[in-house]
Amino acid sequence: MQIVLIGSGNVAFHLAKAFTEAQIPISQIFGRNTTELQKISEQFSIPFSAKTLAEADLYIISVSDSSIAEVSALIKNENALVAHTSGSVSREALSGNYRKSVFYPLQTFSKSKNLDYSKIPFFIDAENENDEEILKNLASKISKNVMLANDEKRKYIHLTAVFACNFVNHLYARAKEISDSQGIPFDYFLPLIDETTQKIHELEPKLAQTGPAIRNDEKVLKLHESLLTDEEKLKIYKTLNESIKKMYH
Amino acid sequence: MQIVLIGSGNVAFHLAKAFTEAQIPISQIFGRNTTELQKISEQFSIPFSAKTLAEADLYIISVSDSSIAEVSALIKNENALVAHTSGSVSREALSGNYRKSVFYPLQTFSKSKNLDYSKIPFFIDAENENDEEILKNLASKISKNVMLANDEKRKYIHLTAVFACNFVNHLYARAKEISDSQGIPFDYFLPLIDETTQKIHELEPKLAQTGPAIRNDEKVLKLHESLLTDEEKLKIYKTLNESIKKMYH
Repeated sequence: MQIVLIGSGNVAFHLAKAFTEAQIPISQIFGRNTTELQKISEQFSIPFSAKTLAEADLYIISVSDSSIAEVSALIKNENALVAHTSGSVSREALSGNYRKSVFYPLQTFSKSKNLDYSKIPFFIDAENENDEEILKNLASKISKNVMLANDEKRKYIHLTAVFACNFVNHLYARAKEISDSQGIPFDYFLPLIDETTQKIHELEPKLAQTGPAIRNDEKVLKLHESLLTDEEKLKIYKTLNESIKKMYH
Repeated sequence: MQIVLIGSGNVAFHLAKAFTEAQIPISQIFGRNTTELQKISEQFSIPFSAKTLAEADLYIISVSDSSIAEVSALIKNENALVAHTSGSVSREALSGNYRKSVFYPLQTFSKSKNLDYSKIPFFIDAENENDEEILKNLASKISKNVMLANDEKRKYIHLTAVFACNFVNHLYARAKEISDSQGIPFDYFLPLIDETTQKIHELEPKLAQTGPAIRNDEKVLKLHESLLTDEEKLKIYKTLNESIKKMYH
């Protein structure tokens, strides 16, 4: 099976790396950014082009969500299977006359950061069972966690990730505002933050809950509210405590 | 300096372990729960008693917040320095005629979980500089992060920890409700969760923010709101997105 990878960003880089490590050959890496393409090409010995898209059985498109339609329209091969790698874009966003699919790795990628690919879940979507099998087999060579997920299911995966990652990061940012205001280095909280995250590897998060809200410690809750002078943090404080109370009481 | 440790819970256990590893002798471990005392006593070769509190220069009280007043009243030695280890209780909660202080390790402790003590921040509070020095020296033998923090400052440390840990854990619990509803194993999100937490070791959380709210993706935000059928999660979703928008726009 001839595979062409389209894109030169964080996801494309890590897919090139993961495929290479799994000894799956990539015939070409295609994109606009010649500098980035050349780097990936050299690092993983994959031919690249910014001009002529090679013929392939499978095209994997790892570009920004908003470019998927435009980039996918470049593929004129009606016998090809085409996959994008986005969590929040429909399979039908692919624009062209070919078999459409999704090959979505659930992770946040940076080029400089090494990752254990075997742990990254891949969510697959395709038009028919045969294409599902092709993509499942491919993903299984990289990762131990491969699962089917149609557009509908992927919406919920994305929503879960917003709660567990985007919102969590925002709480870190708001927490840092509080510690900064008192001249306490935020780094001091990292061991506690790490431990909180490690804990849920062993314990269901619902059972790992601690803090003033779950023990209905009204005295501490009122004290904290009096310390929060800005509206946004106070709103977060009240909303999350109310939600904790509703979950347990 | 003769040190007596009071309590046999998670914090007391880890202090006994940390002191032993740092070759700081503890003269006695004192408490009510003979079974737990005996275990700690055997593991770290520390004499224990549930009846007679030994004479000491320093008493460290690691019991539940609500028991600090009662337990500390047992100490009749007016020449002693007495410290509790709680983040959310005032130094003045210690009830007795002796020098009062706080020796607060910022971490969540479980007996079964090994910890790198050198990274755990210790926050010290005492009545005078001499006592501050005694406790700072002691903590420095265990940890690289030792800092003074009076009652006022400790309130903010606790508040920061509520945002960065208690609330984060609750978001994990709410996220799991969403993935459970779709039959997606929550374990699939752990690599992404780990990476989100690891990222802030290298990048300020404010700069690490991603997701639909920071890129003002109203289409995705509206879609997610339509997926959230229960009131609590919808309220969290709106409150946190609003706060993200306010922080960046």
